[in-house]
Amino acid sequence: LDGTVYKGSNAVAGAADTIDWLRGRGKRLVFLSNRGNISRERCQANLAGMGIEVEREEIVLTSSVAAAYLKRHHEAAAVWTLGDEGLRDELRLAGVSLAAFPEAADWLLITLCETLTYTDLNDAFRAVRNGAKIMATNADRMFPGQDGLSIDVAGMIGAITATTGQTVELTLGKPSALMANAALDALGLPPERCLIVGDSLESDIRLGKRSGMMTALVLTGSATREEAEASRLEPDWICGSIADLRQLMPTTANREGDQHDRTCIPD
Amino acid sequence: LDGTVYKGSNAVAGAADTIDWLRGRGKRLVFLSNRGNISRERCQANLAGMGIEVEREEIVLTSSVAAAYLKRHHEAAAVWTLGDEGLRDELRLAGVSLAAFPEAADWLLITLCETLTYTDLNDAFRAVRNGAKIMATNADRMFPGQDGLSIDVAGMIGAITATTGQTVELTLGKPSALMANAALDALGLPPERCLIVGDSLESDIRLGKRSGMMTALVLTGSATREEAEASRLEPDWICGSIADLRQLMPTTANREGDQHDRTCIPD
Repeated sequence: LDGTVYKGSNAVAGAADTIDWLRGRGKRLVFLSNRGNISRERCQANLAGMGIEVEREEIVLTSSVAAAYLKRHHEAAAVWTLGDEGLRDELRLAGVSLAAFPEAADWLLITLCETLTYTDLNDAFRAVRNGAKIMATNADRMFPGQDGLSIDVAGMIGAITATTGQTVELTLGKPSALMANAALDALGLPPERCLIVGDSLESDIRLGKRSGMMTALVLTGSATREEAEASRLEPDWICGSIADLRQLMPTTANREGDQHDRTCIPD
Repeated sequence: LDGTVYKGSNAVAGAADTIDWLRGRGKRLVFLSNRGNISRERCQANLAGMGIEVEREEIVLTSSVAAAYLKRHHEAAAVWTLGDEGLRDELRLAGVSLAAFPEAADWLLITLCETLTYTDLNDAFRAVRNGAKIMATNADRMFPGQDGLSIDVAGMIGAITATTGQTVELTLGKPSALMANAALDALGLPPERCLIVGDSLESDIRLGKRSGMMTALVLTGSATREEAEASRLEPDWICGSIADLRQLMPTTANREGDQHDRTCIPD
C-alpha cells in the first residue's frame, strides 16, 4: 500500500481512478500490506479518506494475518504485544487471548510501535525473559513516514533480541507464503491468474515470484528503475505508478509466455 | 554502585558506615558506575538521600567520561543523544556541542533512556542514516530496576544498529581502560594501590584485573558465589557485601602476593 497506493496520507496520483477502472473490468482486488500496527478497519478508513473505497475483506495486513495465524496454530496461547493498538484490535477480533501481564505470555508479537515508551520495551523484554517466544509481523528496517524515512519494526525487534539473546521464531510479512496465501484466499483465485503490484523488489516482487503470480513493480516507492533492472528478481513489468496499470491490462489479458515488454510505459 | 553500594533506591546494609570508616582510615574513594543517563550531580543527590555523602569529583559515570572523551578527542563534533537528560547535563557541563537536529550530528551517543519514546528512537535512527557515528556509554543488556530486571542500553543500541546496519564505534563503560583511567585520575594513585569493589565479574573484576588493581567481588548484585568461584577472572576476595570491607582491610594492608584467603568472611 504505502509507496504503491499512497504515500503517507496522500493517494498516488490516479490510484483511486485506476482502482475504479479495474473494478469496472471485473477484476478482483486485495490490498496487501506489511503494516501490522493498524487494524483493517483503520486501513479501510484511511483509504476512504483518500477516495478509495475498499471492503474490509479486501484488506490483508500482517496484523490480521498474525491474528489468524495465532488463532489457528496457537489457540491456547496468551500473547503479549509490542506494537500499536491496531494490532491488539485485530487480535481481539480474531479471539486471540492477550496476556494479562508480560510474564504470563507464551508469545511476544512485535510490530511497529509509533506510540513506543520505555515501559513498552521493558514489558516486552520481561515477557521474553520469562519464556515467551518471539513472533514479528514483519522485519522491515524503515518505512517512508510523513516527515521522512522512519525506523520500523526491525528496531523494536533489535531492542528485544539484543538484550534477551533470543531470536525471532517466526516473521509473517511479505514475502512469506503466509501473506501470499492470505491474499489468494481473499481473492479465491489461483496464483497464475493474479498480478501483484508493489514498490518493493524484496517483499512484493519476491512474493509474486515465489508464489507464481505475475509481478509489476511501481516506481513510486522504495525501488528505482536502475535497481529493478539490475535485480535478479526481474519483475514482469516496471511501471511508473499504479495509474499505468490501465496501459498494462490489454497486454496481460493476452499474455503469452515472456512476449510482453518489461517496460510498459514511456518515461 | 547499583548492586554494590545500593540496590535501587536503598543503600546496601552497612554501606554508609563502611564508607565513613574507610574515610576515617584515610582511604581515597571513587564511585564508579556504568550509568550514563544521570549526571554526577544527580548521582551525588541520590547517594546523599541514602546517607552517603560524596563529592562530585569522587563520582565517575559513563556520562561524565563520555563528555570528557568527546571534549578531548572530538571537540568540534556535534553530538546527538539517545538517552535521558542526565547525559546531556554532563555534555553541556563539559562544553560539548549538542547537535540542533539529528541530521546535523557527527556522533550519536547512546545510553539508557528511561524516558524513551518512538520519536527519540526515530531521531537517533535519522542521525545515523545521515552519517553520525555511534558511541555508547556502555553496552549492558539489563539492570536491576525498582520492580525487577529491566532492559538496558543494549536495547537502545540494538534498535539503532539493526535498522541502520551500522555498528558501535566505541563503547566507553567498564571494563574499558577509559573508565579505569578516569578512576585512577580521580584517585591520583597507581593501580597497584587500588582495590576495586564491585558486583559484576565481567565489568568490575575484569576492569581491576586488566588495569592491575586488587579486586573484591560483592554478592549483593549480579554475581553469585558459584559464578565467582567458577570464573577464570578469580577475584582476589569474595565478600558478602561492601560492609565486609572492614574485615578485609587488615589483610589488604599486609597483602603479600597470593597469601590472602579468597573468601574473607564467614557465610
